[in-house]
Amino acid sequence: MSTESIIDRFVSTRERFLTICEPLEVEDYGLQAAEFASPPKWHLAHSSWFFETFLLKPFVVGYEPLEPLYEVLFNSYYNGIGDQHPRGQRGLLSRPSLDEVLAYRAHVDRAMVSLLKAADEHASEESIISRTVLGIEHERQHQELFFTDLKFSLSANPLYPSYVSAPAEQGQALEPLLWTGFEEGLVEIGHSGDGFCFDHELPRHRVFLESFELANRLVSNGEYQAFVDDGAYQRPELWLADGWAAVQENHWTGPLHWVDRDGEALEFTLMGLQPRQAATPVSHVSGYEADAYARWAGARLPREAEWEQVAASHVSDSLLSSVDSHHPRSAVGGDLQQLYGECWQWTQSAYSPYPGFAPSAGAIGEYNGKFMSNQWILRGGSCVTPPSQARPTYRNFFYPRDRWQFSGIRLAR
Amino acid sequence: MSTESIIDRFVSTRERFLTICEPLEVEDYGLQAAEFASPPKWHLAHSSWFFETFLLKPFVVGYEPLEPLYEVLFNSYYNGIGDQHPRGQRGLLSRPSLDEVLAYRAHVDRAMVSLLKAADEHASEESIISRTVLGIEHERQHQELFFTDLKFSLSANPLYPSYVSAPAEQGQALEPLLWTGFEEGLVEIGHSGDGFCFDHELPRHRVFLESFELANRLVSNGEYQAFVDDGAYQRPELWLADGWAAVQENHWTGPLHWVDRDGEALEFTLMGLQPRQAATPVSHVSGYEADAYARWAGARLPREAEWEQVAASHVSDSLLSSVDSHHPRSAVGGDLQQLYGECWQWTQSAYSPYPGFAPSAGAIGEYNGKFMSNQWILRGGSCVTPPSQARPTYRNFFYPRDRWQFSGIRLAR
Amino acid sequence: MSTESIIDRFVSTRERFLTICEPLEVEDYGLQAAEFASPPKWHLAHSSWFFETFLLKPFVVGYEPLEPLYEVLFNSYYNGIGDQHPRGQRGLLSRPSLDEVLAYRAHVDRAMVSLLKAADEHASEESIISRTVLGIEHERQHQELFFTDLKFSLSANPLYPSYVSAPAEQGQALEPLLWTGFEEGLVEIGHSGDGFCFDHELPRHRVFLESFELANRLVSNGEYQAFVDDGAYQRPELWLADGWAAVQENHWTGPLHWVDRDGEALEFTLMGLQPRQAATPVSHVSGYEADAYARWAGARLPREAEWEQVAASHVSDSLLSSVDSHHPRSAVGGDLQQLYGECWQWTQSAYSPYPGFAPSAGAIGEYNGKFMSNQWILRGGSCVTPPSQARPTYRNFFYPRDRWQFSGIRLAR
Amino acid sequence: MSTESIIDRFVSTRERFLTICEPLEVEDYGLQAAEFASPPKWHLAHSSWFFETFLLKPFVVGYEPLEPLYEVLFNSYYNGIGDQHPRGQRGLLSRPSLDEVLAYRAHVDRAMVSLLKAADEHASEESIISRTVLGIEHERQHQELFFTDLKFSLSANPLYPSYVSAPAEQGQALEPLLWTGFEEGLVEIGHSGDGFCFDHELPRHRVFLESFELANRLVSNGEYQAFVDDGAYQRPELWLADGWAAVQENHWTGPLHWVDRDGEALEFTLMGLQPRQAATPVSHVSGYEADAYARWAGARLPREAEWEQVAASHVSDSLLSSVDSHHPRSAVGGDLQQLYGECWQWTQSAYSPYPGFAPSAGAIGEYNGKFMSNQWILRGGSCVTPPSQARPTYRNFFYPRDRWQFSGIRLAR
Repeated sequence: MSTESIIDRFVSTRERFLTICEPLEVEDYGLQAAEFASPPKWHLAHSSWFFETFLLKPFVVGYEPLEPLYEVLFNSYYNGIGDQHPRGQRGLLSRPSLDEVLAYRAHVDRAMVSLLKAADEHASEESIISRTVLGIEHERQHQELFFTDLKFSLSANPLYPSYVSAPAEQGQALEPLLWTGFEEGLVEIGHSGDGFCFDHELPRHRVFLESFELANRLVSNGEYQAFVDDGAYQRPELWLADGWAAVQENHWTGPLHWVDRDGEALEFTLMGLQPRQAATPVSHVSGYEADAYARWAGARLPREAEWEQVAASHVSDSLLSSVDSHHPRSAVGGDLQQLYGECWQWTQSAYSPYPGFAPSAGAIGEYNGKFMSNQWILRGGSCVTPPSQARPTYRNFFYPRDRWQFSGIRLAR
Repeated sequence: MSTESIIDRFVSTRERFLTICEPLEVEDYGLQAAEFASPPKWHLAHSSWFFETFLLKPFVVGYEPLEPLYEVLFNSYYNGIGDQHPRGQRGLLSRPSLDEVLAYRAHVDRAMVSLLKAADEHASEESIISRTVLGIEHERQHQELFFTDLKFSLSANPLYPSYVSAPAEQGQALEPLLWTGFEEGLVEIGHSGDGFCFDHELPRHRVFLESFELANRLVSNGEYQAFVDDGAYQRPELWLADGWAAVQENHWTGPLHWVDRDGEALEFTLMGLQPRQAATPVSHVSGYEADAYARWAGARLPREAEWEQVAASHVSDSLLSSVDSHHPRSAVGGDLQQLYGECWQWTQSAYSPYPGFAPSAGAIGEYNGKFMSNQWILRGGSCVTPPSQARPTYRNFFYPRDRWQFSGIRLAR
Repeated sequence: MSTESIIDRFVSTRERFLTICEPLEVEDYGLQAAEFASPPKWHLAHSSWFFETFLLKPFVVGYEPLEPLYEVLFNSYYNGIGDQHPRGQRGLLSRPSLDEVLAYRAHVDRAMVSLLKAADEHASEESIISRTVLGIEHERQHQELFFTDLKFSLSANPLYPSYVSAPAEQGQALEPLLWTGFEEGLVEIGHSGDGFCFDHELPRHRVFLESFELANRLVSNGEYQAFVDDGAYQRPELWLADGWAAVQENHWTGPLHWVDRDGEALEFTLMGLQPRQAATPVSHVSGYEADAYARWAGARLPREAEWEQVAASHVSDSLLSSVDSHHPRSAVGGDLQQLYGECWQWTQSAYSPYPGFAPSAGAIGEYNGKFMSNQWILRGGSCVTPPSQARPTYRNFFYPRDRWQFSGIRLAR
Repeated sequence: MSTESIIDRFVSTRERFLTICEPLEVEDYGLQAAEFASPPKWHLAHSSWFFETFLLKPFVVGYEPLEPLYEVLFNSYYNGIGDQHPRGQRGLLSRPSLDEVLAYRAHVDRAMVSLLKAADEHASEESIISRTVLGIEHERQHQELFFTDLKFSLSANPLYPSYVSAPAEQGQALEPLLWTGFEEGLVEIGHSGDGFCFDHELPRHRVFLESFELANRLVSNGEYQAFVDDGAYQRPELWLADGWAAVQENHWTGPLHWVDRDGEALEFTLMGLQPRQAATPVSHVSGYEADAYARWAGARLPREAEWEQVAASHVSDSLLSSVDSHHPRSAVGGDLQQLYGECWQWTQSAYSPYPGFAPSAGAIGEYNGKFMSNQWILRGGSCVTPPSQARPTYRNFFYPRDRWQFSGIRLAR
């Protein structure tokens, strides 16, 4: 890849973050309604911190940070770098102000472009390029978190503010759910080829799969409503033990962001409170809810290798996704669809290392490897995932109790 | 009191709140670093809510609230009015934005002035006037909380932002601590006369006091440092049992806002981090720390009746206080001083009703009476108390574990 | 007091503890259903520890403790002695076994009797006698706690075991509640004379009291039921703020040990589950509930000085109490009654030092003084208080949230 | 299997529980030092409850339970049966007393033997036999928990009581750790044949394994000490993120039951406090500690399929285990060993269903299936596992934070 094209990609990714922030009020930038939901301002700063920490400080002689304390304030979880400002207190940083954070971004941008321009003559060129690409992908991940964290934090406000005003889709009819069968066999999964991937998508390796069937589309709000109406949240036999404990402890009665008010079935969206559409894919369910729904429906969640095996053979159709919707859209027709662009899809696979997995050396190796316990794999992509990240081998992971992502359900059996 | 003079007082009190907000960044308005430390924006809105709830809604026919939900969002603790937005989540209200809150204030101001102008012809004139006076005093109390809450919330930021840049005093010499004796006798305490007072300052009643001595000034940072250096925070015998539990549980090693860094003794102030001055009154101590200090010093905390008895006979000298300092100032000379204007003074008196106390009827009666358990009385006033509130009979109250007020120590024996 | 009579009192007090333990199963001795409810075995050991620590170790040359670790295991809260086994883990000490604890008691008893016999020749006689008397009173207090802790711990068992099988009283008629008036005046309270008292009953001192009226008997179950039936537990306006928080947090709907099952109004007693008697004094209410009841009834709780003033002039009638009932008994006739022997009576007075109070020196001074914050005074005595402890000046204290004592309500106004 | 041999197995298993209880004091039977560590008395009752609930109630016409409430009190986690006494409060059941629980066991035993004798003529014979076998295996599992729960609960006592007095081994030399290699290939795992297995050991299925090496013995105390001495508990880079959080939150500095006192390296065992032996297998480590140790040692934990594949080909040597040791014993010689009889071995495999897994119908299906989230597989068996349960396909599972089992480390790479 040419230095020039890297610079282009860097600049456009960085600019996109400012673009998606435009609808915000200044007061929204500091909002953090839960430990996991970082404020917009923090995302803007942390994604700059990543470039500063892993590129500018090691590769630019005499690089001067704007403010030494930012190393601590905007470190997410890299113990190899040093202390971190407590995660739950990111919303308490009224300073640096938004203007100061934007100045920090500009400072990092200038230094990065200089570094990249000089990279050709630089002995560490390969490291610089590969780390820049990683930083770009990292920033894209935070652009997705920007949306889901913001949605969560706005939902804590009884005024239900909207991020944008365009209405969500309405009145679509639900397409019938169809099953496609796949034969048993020894398959290969994991990334191959020259394109970018994260370390945990490697190495490509063999897995034996029994024959299985996969649903052609995601489970809809209406179908999930039937599960709720069948008393699912009062029936322990449908749930994993830890899932049932989560239901009790958190008093769950339906997906996050469902709002029932005065007899109306509503859903909080990035467009504010909207009527809940029956055909729209259900979203913001935990892994436990996805698992219980599948059990109730006489099915199960797919294994990650099953999902990848199917996705790898359907690349052309399924990558037609877009970030403009800000909300999942209904299925159309009976083809296999909604692999990307609507909701992440919970799998039954625990997040664990592929055989032979080796994380990168140093602090940057903390990116993925250290999270390989207690989390579950989600596959695909959502309505707020940058389209460039949609690929069959992408491994997303969250705790099965987590619900603030656009996480939905695709059944297998 | 004439309607005109009430309007003047109303307008100037309301304007003062905007004045003291001027040094803030927009991002500071939403800051809440603990459940007890409400954001500036919330104080601005709640003090308006008080007028809206207790005056505009009951007395203005056809009054239209700007936004019906504000009744819930900006209700502090009045169960008689209805539900309250959870106290710990006031910082999550990025909306209404600052501009919207200022518009709310203006809306209330216009309606209040109209109401007051028409009050002469109004059957409920007396209620309107007395409630307006209460609302003004209420707003002044929140102007004090604005400072202490803000100081606390800013202190959670490792950048230690300052509210204003003027430096605190430096290098004063410590005046010797002198004792004045008072004879035993049956005294009267509680408010008398025509001036405003809160309900719990009544009724005036008789109390028998043994003879006692009171210190002429507050305990200083340097004196408190000697207590710390004597191992006080490791010596349970100096503490009340609940105080010792608080020390252990919160890992207290000194007053709130003391910062020891790289061998430097600093103090976080509204002017940012400053060197800790030995002669300055110690502040931000809990009642437990005040009590333990007194025990260590061979003295005790005063009873509220003792304090009031002394203050009542020193009115002329002691009301010379000002809000401009933003930090306690050292004693000067040997007279009895620092009754007001520097730090609130913990007493050993639990907050309880005076014999014959009767709270107001209705929700407004929740103002003071329902807090009469587990809290301790503080007397005097601090560097951020509006001077108009300094009076011998004023009863301030906080939990003995609370430290975020400008709370200091005056000894008795 | 003669050494002989002290020995008699010592021996009979120690023996009484074994007598009241007789109905227990071995398994009951280790039972601890809450941090505050110590197991019977622990009470047996701790009351011995008190004599060992404050008499045998300082006064008996060459005294050999049975097991050095008991110094830690059976220290309740004396920081001056050293570390304490965590209070909430007293129930985890299956060893020492009951037999070993009884051997420990016998070991201490023998050494104590020897020490007392030799006391005449002993230079520290006065200390020995006065500490022994304190140890005896201390053991009597733990005999009361034995009953209330045991009752609480047994109540956690869905089988509702009984301590004894004799039935509680049944079907008494409720006597009308009468008021007696008292004039205003300067009175003296606090202990006087030669008899034993705790340090915090001193010094005797003057208090000015306004005129008041006191109810002749305690509030009954039936009267309290009317308060419950009037929706009191759903009406915040009746409660102190901290009391209302306690109601919400603990989901209180009535007194501790009230059990409503299949439409039957029951009460858990030391005689097991029994029908709830309308005329029986209500018991096991927190200070908050007592306060709210009084407010609802248009009355208030007495001040401790008021209670003492009245009790001091009614000594002869009111000391007719007995420990044999194990449950409060109904009022009979219209005289002032039930001062002792049924339920402790919450006052509105916070527990604080009398003017001039000075605790004993050393660890023994931790007995009372360090608890003088956040607790409320109860006066009188209950059905499980040893009669020898009934006196007008006795100051009992618990947190206003505490309900596991036989704590009831006497109204004032 | 003949009815007679089932009866024999039932009777001897039931009797063994009484045998292993013999060293206890009555007071030990109620001990519960953590929610997870059930009291001996509860295990005795619950294992009887299992037979009563799944055999006597459904299959014996007119069966009379001794006490109806036992259905709730001794239900562990079967929602399909009904409510459960809260797990953390099992230690609060001083009643039923030990004698009453033993009478309950005898009552169930008599009824079970009658049922089994009559089984030949019974239409549901197959269910009765298979459920009885399951009940026997269930009781054996609780006999193992009896030891590990008891050890944990006794460890909360500063007197460190012993269960038995026989000394642990001493002074063994550490054998060198050797590696055995295994080729890649498609293997079969899961139970086959006629013998008993739990539902989650099925179905037998194919798994593709890369080539790997397995250590011939367990990691020793001395080797683990080197890991501790290398600062492992202060080095986040060695740990999974959740593991590091557990280290911080629980202040772990070494395995559970390691005691360092006055410079001595000790270990709490079922024989009381003993010197820590360097050659003895390290035990009572969490999955996180096992994982971190492996990373530090340049190795990894085995996958469960790897472990099973190796164990399946070493059946004859490795089943020589015994319950008499009560503590893991050192390795002898260089052969593959310690598969069973010393410590369970953490794997890196999350506990999840085999492809095609189907739990039993009804409440009995809650036995295993509902726990398939967030737990890790351990393989092998420990010094307190009944030898009859040692088999290559046995899947044990605990949360990676759990440490109170005899859980150790076998490395792979």
